[in-house]
Amino acid sequence: MNTDHDDRANLEPCVVGVDFGTLSGRAVVVRVRDGAELGTAEHAYTHAVLDRELPDGTRLPPDWALQVPSDYLDVLRHAVPEALFRAGVRPEQVIGVGTDFTACTVLPVLADGTPLCELPDLTGRPHAYVKLWRHHAAQGHADRINALAAERREPWLARYGGKISSEWEFAKALQVLEEDPEVYGRTERWVEAADWIVWRLCGTYVRNACTAGYKGQLQDGAYPSRDYLAALNPDFADFVTDKLDQPIAELGAPAGTLTAEAAAWTGLPEGITVCVGHVDAHVTAPAAGAVEPGQMVAIMGTSTCHVMSSDQRATVPGMCGVVDGGILPGLWGYEAGQSGVGDIFAWFVRNGFPAEYAERAASLGRSAHEHLTALAAEQKVGEHGLIALDWHSGNRSVLVDHDLSGVLVGLTLSTRPEDIYRALLEATAFGTRTIIDAFEAADVPVQEVIVAGGLTKNALLMQIYADVTRRPLGVIGSAQGPALGAAMHAAVAAGAYPDIRAAAHAMGKVHRGAYQPDPERAAAYDRLYAEYRLLHDYFGRGANEVMHRLRRVRAAASA
Amino acid sequence: MNTDHDDRANLEPCVVGVDFGTLSGRAVVVRVRDGAELGTAEHAYTHAVLDRELPDGTRLPPDWALQVPSDYLDVLRHAVPEALFRAGVRPEQVIGVGTDFTACTVLPVLADGTPLCELPDLTGRPHAYVKLWRHHAAQGHADRINALAAERREPWLARYGGKISSEWEFAKALQVLEEDPEVYGRTERWVEAADWIVWRLCGTYVRNACTAGYKGQLQDGAYPSRDYLAALNPDFADFVTDKLDQPIAELGAPAGTLTAEAAAWTGLPEGITVCVGHVDAHVTAPAAGAVEPGQMVAIMGTSTCHVMSSDQRATVPGMCGVVDGGILPGLWGYEAGQSGVGDIFAWFVRNGFPAEYAERAASLGRSAHEHLTALAAEQKVGEHGLIALDWHSGNRSVLVDHDLSGVLVGLTLSTRPEDIYRALLEATAFGTRTIIDAFEAADVPVQEVIVAGGLTKNALLMQIYADVTRRPLGVIGSAQGPALGAAMHAAVAAGAYPDIRAAAHAMGKVHRGAYQPDPERAAAYDRLYAEYRLLHDYFGRGANEVMHRLRRVRAAASA
Repeated sequence: MNTDHDDRANLEPCVVGVDFGTLSGRAVVVRVRDGAELGTAEHAYTHAVLDRELPDGTRLPPDWALQVPSDYLDVLRHAVPEALFRAGVRPEQVIGVGTDFTACTVLPVLADGTPLCELPDLTGRPHAYVKLWRHHAAQGHADRINALAAERREPWLARYGGKISSEWEFAKALQVLEEDPEVYGRTERWVEAADWIVWRLCGTYVRNACTAGYKGQLQDGAYPSRDYLAALNPDFADFVTDKLDQPIAELGAPAGTLTAEAAAWTGLPEGITVCVGHVDAHVTAPAAGAVEPGQMVAIMGTSTCHVMSSDQRATVPGMCGVVDGGILPGLWGYEAGQSGVGDIFAWFVRNGFPAEYAERAASLGRSAHEHLTALAAEQKVGEHGLIALDWHSGNRSVLVDHDLSGVLVGLTLSTRPEDIYRALLEATAFGTRTIIDAFEAADVPVQEVIVAGGLTKNALLMQIYADVTRRPLGVIGSAQGPALGAAMHAAVAAGAYPDIRAAAHAMGKVHRGAYQPDPERAAAYDRLYAEYRLLHDYFGRGANEVMHRLRRVRAAASA
Repeated sequence: MNTDHDDRANLEPCVVGVDFGTLSGRAVVVRVRDGAELGTAEHAYTHAVLDRELPDGTRLPPDWALQVPSDYLDVLRHAVPEALFRAGVRPEQVIGVGTDFTACTVLPVLADGTPLCELPDLTGRPHAYVKLWRHHAAQGHADRINALAAERREPWLARYGGKISSEWEFAKALQVLEEDPEVYGRTERWVEAADWIVWRLCGTYVRNACTAGYKGQLQDGAYPSRDYLAALNPDFADFVTDKLDQPIAELGAPAGTLTAEAAAWTGLPEGITVCVGHVDAHVTAPAAGAVEPGQMVAIMGTSTCHVMSSDQRATVPGMCGVVDGGILPGLWGYEAGQSGVGDIFAWFVRNGFPAEYAERAASLGRSAHEHLTALAAEQKVGEHGLIALDWHSGNRSVLVDHDLSGVLVGLTLSTRPEDIYRALLEATAFGTRTIIDAFEAADVPVQEVIVAGGLTKNALLMQIYADVTRRPLGVIGSAQGPALGAAMHAAVAAGAYPDIRAAAHAMGKVHRGAYQPDPERAAAYDRLYAEYRLLHDYFGRGANEVMHRLRRVRAAASA
């Protein structure tokens, strides 16, 4: 029971945001007036991620990652009522519900929204399940999609930095067609989970502009052409018209009203507004108060997603995508990313944290990350003598090459774990600056960086980002950025605010300029960043293809 | 008491070899007939290495490394009698004594051999002490020596691969002159410890051909010219004639006979033959039976020293030196080296061996090195996907650049400690192959590699070296290679054998071809070696001077 509110507050209008993550869903009850988060609850997915076998024991090949759609409904049944209870909010105070989802997380359904994996004769068929964003088994299909699009100079390709991802809708659908034609044939709609959950809430299937643009290559009102799809595979020619196309709704628009069934699941009143679906990263921007052009929001966790809106449409080489209204209605939304950030720090702690350090950290009551950070914080810029490339999980933006790998240069016999740890923190900051520089080189200015996500709690890392990017760094004021953003859009959809800008001013939470760049450190980092860029271009742009060759050697040796 | 001999054996002629290492000296009693090592004893230096302060508390600057000469005499007093006792050998059986020393380890003495640091008014003066081989505070002096020699095209420079080391006689002497002119002025002889200990044993100062050539730039009978030295510093003009020049004796020659004083220290008979001094690495060659051209001996410990004799005199770029009779009388002796080998593996174990691994190793009764080696041995060539550069302690041969540093390329989130460990083992093997290739490119063939030193006990490492170098690998049959080699030379000096070749055939110990290259692995390593060479040249030959710049940044940040 939240105690930070009185009876009067309890009678104020509220909205509910539900964030569907990789392993669980979280519901937040938010006060419309000021964005106060009155209550939160989390519910873990029963089946988590299926990456080894189906519930019936059917084995899955490597690189697969599936989910079970009924797990999402369980979040509505458990987390939403629990959050309401903790908030001490009466159901009738809630005027709208908004959701956000991982993406591209996509599933095959019947025309009424029934997931194919729930049909008794298809429960043993892997391709009938939800393909989670990190399902990477369609890389071969993505490679063909990219090669053919480049060959035919398809107009949409440049909007995605020259390469679409194996994670997206077309690659995953083509894999279904070619590996299980029967499941493909019985698929009546190929739907983003972000839209499917809204469909379950209000009974109406509308496709949100964000995933349609970023994950479905909808550009200027058109998907990839029938002609192009037929050239990929003749049986794929009608994919868009038969299974994908659907009316598009802009972000913050109402999708419909809560059905009686969904009201029973959630404990919310039937008939309240249900907002169109969102993607977790993109919806964090308004939650962090970023509704103006030039405000880049970096959601930093295991990986980092950068989202920014602009009134300019530009071709920024190597970005994930530029989509009209993809983040905020009326602006061009840009998305970029770094495929490994917190994952790289975690990898180092698993592998490079000696027993002696572990004992010392324990005696000081510090976690491994806290201990390494404290030791790294004692250093001056450049004191460790190292430069790292942060490509342990590949490079998502600028180079768009997942076969790149990490590098450490400058090791000596006196190099210590905290030296390497700091070099890795810095490398990810250099990676972000490389993305910012790419935007600015394409005449898309980046004026401010606002950070959200789990890594915001590392103050050394935040200061390094401010120093390296030479920009004031804002920090989101919520631990539930995506759910808060979804709730804010719900407030707009319900008519409490005229648009998301107004909602963001009232409900968004950011500590503006929480970290300021230090001119001396920034100058020192300029020198190290120049070294980073030299190595970045040498290893990443074809001068030495050693990383690709090492992968081939590794694959052959492991075969 | 050694039990592996009978009374008859006890009456056979023996020789004593004494090896003066970095932290201790070891004496070995060896049977002349077959090289059997009958008894061994070790004595640690009381003052070890002075790298922070003198015995009286006088502070030393960074990069200094001094020793106390009386510690060496203590080895004669303790280790020699103890080894005799353990061998069960009567003093009268011993027909000669030989020694070897680290190099360049050098000290200032009076004309009678008295070390300046033993003069009461100089005991508080750092420059009056022995400068150990790893005293690195004369780098600035070495840089000037090299720059001036290059500018003047001094003929001796090419014999040292184009660069002499800060560890050698001239750089260290110039440092004394310029930092403590009074100590320099009172120096009557600037003597290698290898020759000083022989002088103490037999009362005669003869300079051995090995250190004179490798560490004193004596080439074709001449040292660097008076003219050149005057240009370095006018007060240095007469350094050679005043303090350095001394009759040269070839290796294996008698220097004199044991004095009564030295007989009292050692318990050996007065008047037996004392052999001229040797360097530890070079004297290991005959101990390993390597007395023919094309037999390279690699002494592998914290660093690796490669020594090889040839009937060809060639200019091999980047080698430590080529000296007439420098290893074996009558042949050109080549020296090369890798400045970090075992040191790099030890660095990794200190820094990259997680607590979980330490627990598992302990439960299996394995050391950290044994555990990582066992895990690394399970892999196929290339399976880890990594390439490392083994320059954590700089590059001694081929590039001759101590400001280079280590590199790791190919890191991913699934890279494990044993992967990096194996990549480091392989990197040092690639370093040795690079040296072998440099010899062969200069028409100095390398037919066979024989390994000595502490790392020979790692069978995986040995097999990797055989596979990478594509050569049969022999392993020395003694744990006391240097002392055995010194004893063999003593047997020659005493007349028991006509020359070192004959002594080596009778007394040397090697398992020829203990490891054979596997054609399939060798082919796989050819591919990885090509990657190593690409990175070697990129980082080492000026394409990207990032390592030098990082050192400067580090130095500035640490200042």
